[in-house]
Amino acid sequence: MNFGFGNDFRITVFGESHGKCIGVVVEGCPAGFPIGEAEIQEELDRRRPGKSMTSARQENDAVRFLSGIVDGRANGGPITMIVMNEDINSSWYDRNRTVPRPGHSDYSAIIKYGSFNYWRGGSFFSGRMTAAIVMGGAIAKKLLRKKGIRVFSHLTQLGGVSVDFEVTDHQVEEMAPKSPVWCADSKKSLLMVEELEKVKSEQDSLGGIVECRVIGLPAGIGEPFFDSVESVISHGIFSIPAAKGIEFGDGFRLCGMKGSKANDEFALEGEKVITRTNHSGGILGGITDGMPLVLRVAFKPTPSIGKAQRSVNLSKMEEVEIHIEGRHDPCIAVRAVPVVEAIVSTCLADLMIRAQKISRVKGD
Amino acid sequence: MNFGFGNDFRITVFGESHGKCIGVVVEGCPAGFPIGEAEIQEELDRRRPGKSMTSARQENDAVRFLSGIVDGRANGGPITMIVMNEDINSSWYDRNRTVPRPGHSDYSAIIKYGSFNYWRGGSFFSGRMTAAIVMGGAIAKKLLRKKGIRVFSHLTQLGGVSVDFEVTDHQVEEMAPKSPVWCADSKKSLLMVEELEKVKSEQDSLGGIVECRVIGLPAGIGEPFFDSVESVISHGIFSIPAAKGIEFGDGFRLCGMKGSKANDEFALEGEKVITRTNHSGGILGGITDGMPLVLRVAFKPTPSIGKAQRSVNLSKMEEVEIHIEGRHDPCIAVRAVPVVEAIVSTCLADLMIRAQKISRVKGD
Amino acid sequence: MNFGFGNDFRITVFGESHGKCIGVVVEGCPAGFPIGEAEIQEELDRRRPGKSMTSARQENDAVRFLSGIVDGRANGGPITMIVMNEDINSSWYDRNRTVPRPGHSDYSAIIKYGSFNYWRGGSFFSGRMTAAIVMGGAIAKKLLRKKGIRVFSHLTQLGGVSVDFEVTDHQVEEMAPKSPVWCADSKKSLLMVEELEKVKSEQDSLGGIVECRVIGLPAGIGEPFFDSVESVISHGIFSIPAAKGIEFGDGFRLCGMKGSKANDEFALEGEKVITRTNHSGGILGGITDGMPLVLRVAFKPTPSIGKAQRSVNLSKMEEVEIHIEGRHDPCIAVRAVPVVEAIVSTCLADLMIRAQKISRVKGD
Amino acid sequence: MNFGFGNDFRITVFGESHGKCIGVVVEGCPAGFPIGEAEIQEELDRRRPGKSMTSARQENDAVRFLSGIVDGRANGGPITMIVMNEDINSSWYDRNRTVPRPGHSDYSAIIKYGSFNYWRGGSFFSGRMTAAIVMGGAIAKKLLRKKGIRVFSHLTQLGGVSVDFEVTDHQVEEMAPKSPVWCADSKKSLLMVEELEKVKSEQDSLGGIVECRVIGLPAGIGEPFFDSVESVISHGIFSIPAAKGIEFGDGFRLCGMKGSKANDEFALEGEKVITRTNHSGGILGGITDGMPLVLRVAFKPTPSIGKAQRSVNLSKMEEVEIHIEGRHDPCIAVRAVPVVEAIVSTCLADLMIRAQKISRVKGD
Repeated sequence: MNFGFGNDFRITVFGESHGKCIGVVVEGCPAGFPIGEAEIQEELDRRRPGKSMTSARQENDAVRFLSGIVDGRANGGPITMIVMNEDINSSWYDRNRTVPRPGHSDYSAIIKYGSFNYWRGGSFFSGRMTAAIVMGGAIAKKLLRKKGIRVFSHLTQLGGVSVDFEVTDHQVEEMAPKSPVWCADSKKSLLMVEELEKVKSEQDSLGGIVECRVIGLPAGIGEPFFDSVESVISHGIFSIPAAKGIEFGDGFRLCGMKGSKANDEFALEGEKVITRTNHSGGILGGITDGMPLVLRVAFKPTPSIGKAQRSVNLSKMEEVEIHIEGRHDPCIAVRAVPVVEAIVSTCLADLMIRAQKISRVKGD
Repeated sequence: MNFGFGNDFRITVFGESHGKCIGVVVEGCPAGFPIGEAEIQEELDRRRPGKSMTSARQENDAVRFLSGIVDGRANGGPITMIVMNEDINSSWYDRNRTVPRPGHSDYSAIIKYGSFNYWRGGSFFSGRMTAAIVMGGAIAKKLLRKKGIRVFSHLTQLGGVSVDFEVTDHQVEEMAPKSPVWCADSKKSLLMVEELEKVKSEQDSLGGIVECRVIGLPAGIGEPFFDSVESVISHGIFSIPAAKGIEFGDGFRLCGMKGSKANDEFALEGEKVITRTNHSGGILGGITDGMPLVLRVAFKPTPSIGKAQRSVNLSKMEEVEIHIEGRHDPCIAVRAVPVVEAIVSTCLADLMIRAQKISRVKGD
Repeated sequence: MNFGFGNDFRITVFGESHGKCIGVVVEGCPAGFPIGEAEIQEELDRRRPGKSMTSARQENDAVRFLSGIVDGRANGGPITMIVMNEDINSSWYDRNRTVPRPGHSDYSAIIKYGSFNYWRGGSFFSGRMTAAIVMGGAIAKKLLRKKGIRVFSHLTQLGGVSVDFEVTDHQVEEMAPKSPVWCADSKKSLLMVEELEKVKSEQDSLGGIVECRVIGLPAGIGEPFFDSVESVISHGIFSIPAAKGIEFGDGFRLCGMKGSKANDEFALEGEKVITRTNHSGGILGGITDGMPLVLRVAFKPTPSIGKAQRSVNLSKMEEVEIHIEGRHDPCIAVRAVPVVEAIVSTCLADLMIRAQKISRVKGD
Repeated sequence: MNFGFGNDFRITVFGESHGKCIGVVVEGCPAGFPIGEAEIQEELDRRRPGKSMTSARQENDAVRFLSGIVDGRANGGPITMIVMNEDINSSWYDRNRTVPRPGHSDYSAIIKYGSFNYWRGGSFFSGRMTAAIVMGGAIAKKLLRKKGIRVFSHLTQLGGVSVDFEVTDHQVEEMAPKSPVWCADSKKSLLMVEELEKVKSEQDSLGGIVECRVIGLPAGIGEPFFDSVESVISHGIFSIPAAKGIEFGDGFRLCGMKGSKANDEFALEGEKVITRTNHSGGILGGITDGMPLVLRVAFKPTPSIGKAQRSVNLSKMEEVEIHIEGRHDPCIAVRAVPVVEAIVSTCLADLMIRAQKISRVKGD
């Protein structure tokens, strides 16, 4: 088990899909830092189903603080936040608890935890857990913002539609929030919405790619040897259900480039050392170099689909057909956008604090 | 800082490129487990330059045990192994210590550590550190092998040449070791070698993709919520210098699939629950499902190239041209093959031990 | 910061004295393990003020589960429990927030966290936090009990009264719960109660010693080199406010013995290897040897006393007299009895799980 | 297993008593910090047998750096140091490997690790491992000294002789190093030496108490809730073989005091907040308060004695008599003095770095 993540800024998540609540304990927020329920709520609302057309379960998630905030400010201790679970119907799960849903955690979970665990909405494997991540990440994000660091993201692919041209940071920051699918390009956004509606009518689902960018990061963040920026962020990202790939900078495309092209040459911009290109996505040797951090995360299609699928009834050990009922996102990638930002913010808040520790003697 | 990796099977690496030695402390090997220097040496030899044509520095690395082995068996305590550094020439680095090499850690390292750290072969950022990983991974690999788990890999892309058709596990295991570039397809292997020679003559470099597979893994390995198999492996993989992307199963290709295609339906093979396809690469909900584990790692081109590049002399704060001398691999991806296996083995050995701990009550 | 404790069985505490609630997240309880609110409540009631005469604040603590329990059984995920704070009056603290109370954390806390943190009942430094420890420890205790391991304790000293003769395990287990001050000797118990009443009337306080014993522990528990049984337990124990000393087995008295006396000679009792004496308190080389674990914890007198004391007004930087109001235990040691048991249980549950991992090859 | 200790300043020890070497990997020393082999050697020489009359095995330990130091300065990476083992004679152990020595780790180790582990000088349970701690601690100590923090200690009890009067910091720092048994009082020192000689002639051994003091520590060091100064230090201390008790400030004596006496009242000394007494040993709420840190560690008598003892031959399962041969310290406490300092220094270096991290917003 390990429901905690981070070293000096740390989140511990709890709750389950069809239980009482989803919650998070956040450690490492400095005492005196102002935090209001409204700002956490704002982040939480961004991942709510209904933001896009991609969801059906109504989650009127209202964040509640349980600890760590006194008179609107962090007290230096653990900050605990919860959202209650409502609108739950477990009947389908109760009837199908011995038949693992394809593409879900059900089968591996029952192997590991036995029948006590797996049923009813995926328990703590549910995408619902990402509400906890978003609440914790909201504090991280604000900590970064106070230091002039902005974390934002957009959907660059949804099923067959992809944004394959260059999009500026400004466009991403401005346009993506206006799209129901976080697509920074308005035309592609329309196409993606169409794609979504089509697949929904087919009782099927689609995958997608979320690109996250961070600007304003100082150079020098990241902890050799094993806590490189890429290591820490990928560790966090792969905790998001359905994430199956990640790349930094030009990522997989770097494999086809020559070194003379892939290397970002150093240059001066006034007194500042920069690189004219940013193929490495702002990370060299696992440490930030002061250029924008860029990463992309691949999400597989929502495994819950209406279409009939083949599975095995584990209590009878016979092959059966399974019909998943209930309301499901036709594309998790859309709702994952704020979750990716939350994880990236959490990782960077942690690494920023770790980098406060003196790693060299002064006067050097 | 964090030079240790793993929980219950743990490696701590030390050393630097142009220092006395590279070494590793391995914790978590059970007492009584037989380990000989020869088997560590064998793994180490696989990453040696000269195995392929990709390298020039002579590393006659001979492993030496410093602790943890009594009469050919682990004593339950930390196993320490080193290889001495030889054939070192630091003169180029001494002359260029204020000019960061593009694509290298030099710049971010000097920001973090100051001038004491960065020069002379990249210090502890050097790819040479992977010798420590390979030594530690050799023990992990043997622990897995004793349980019937085999870890093997091959190069699926080198620069412009890629193996884009299906390759069987058997082919990978049998053929890749025979290729100087770990390519399981003999024709593509020849093309890759040609590509390498060409880029070498151009004083340039290439990237590549390493695919790693693991067969024989039981279902139930992986620790929710934050230590999913993907989280732990990606964390380790991104410690390998030059790794810039990772994907599990069909990875980024899943984004373009529909759920009905991407979901691996469950079926029975005798008494065993299997999936007929393996798009998820053997992992569901972050936990192994008993199918082969499959992952691919993208490596950028070797940043050290002979071609002139632009950089900045940090002591004078002026733009300069840099000419890197010395002997360098034209493609790190080739030498990374055994390193990827070592990291994957280390992660799985750790997760296997963690899964020994009872996660549910008996009789369930 | 670090509000989490343990590796494979882990508690994370949250809350503050005068906030909404006190809570704990427990990780590592195996799925399927039966847990009811009533059994947690039972442990919680043991530390309630009013159990003895030692307290005044009314804490009608009713435990509430927030996560991790489905149909009366652990689901394998984090178990979250809270008790609400009631009967709070912060007015004294609000008036005295710039004057640190002698013997309390106020001064060091304000240095570390600033004025946001320190006031109102000691915030997360309060003894009230031990309610979280007791809830978490209750699960640990039950896990141990299922394996035949019993954890119990008694007060061996309260102020000037001490139980300086041999007390059998049976006496401790049977008699201590019947005493209002957990004293296994009924005569001494009466004397302690008198002592308490006297010091209460003087508006002063007393310290005491809690002895904890564990029987039924198998040999082989404890993790060299740095997680010896003593290391892990003492780490946990010194998180209890007011703990100032700990000793194992004969502890400080061993310093005056000769080796020939202090060594516990091995003997056979049927097929079982035992030691006829137990000066080492069941631990050799940091690992249990199968004999009863014995430890004693020294608690200083309650720092909150009614008597006038000298302090400094930090906002005016002048020496002042401070008069602490409110209701306080005249002896924390009494209420610490179930807390010591909770910490010891938590540590042992963790070390038991860690010892499940194979530390040697079979057939040895 | 856990051979690593610390978070941001971390030591990982390796080696065994009768193996090739004893070593340590130190992480967290800032780049550029000057470190020479001579200063490590100096600390190492303080624990050498022969410093006092208490030992017999010749250990001409010469420290060797394997990594982390470039041109006399730390490079920011792991610093690895070893001392080779010499003058080893394992024959007694080879002959007696199935008979556990009373008071030693042999029995619990064989239960945990099997027969591969236990014999030959106690393997990694040996007091010899403390050489690794002293090497790592030497770096910590120097880091502290550069910040004006001094760690020193003395023996306050050896067998029946104890220094039961007040000894000033100055006396401890000046006089203890001049005594062969680290006793700050010259008369008691002579008595202790006599006591030692007597017990040696009896082929027996004695225990003792080491008191460690730290002056110059700023207020605000220590990490709530679970990494209090006492928690971290006691965790480290109980890794020293034979440590069986620890107390901070007045420790166990506080149990007999009243709160009005035990509380250290705050006062002003110019602009500085101080306490006129220091019963709490410089720690309030687990955090330093700026007063001197004081702690005492109880060491049991050396378990290796020449006198015949009863034990069990585990291979034949019969009770036998055991005669331990070889050269052993008649009192480990004497040699433990620099080890206690090394652990305390390591803990404080770690907590100092952790306290560098911002725990509150500025301007508060």
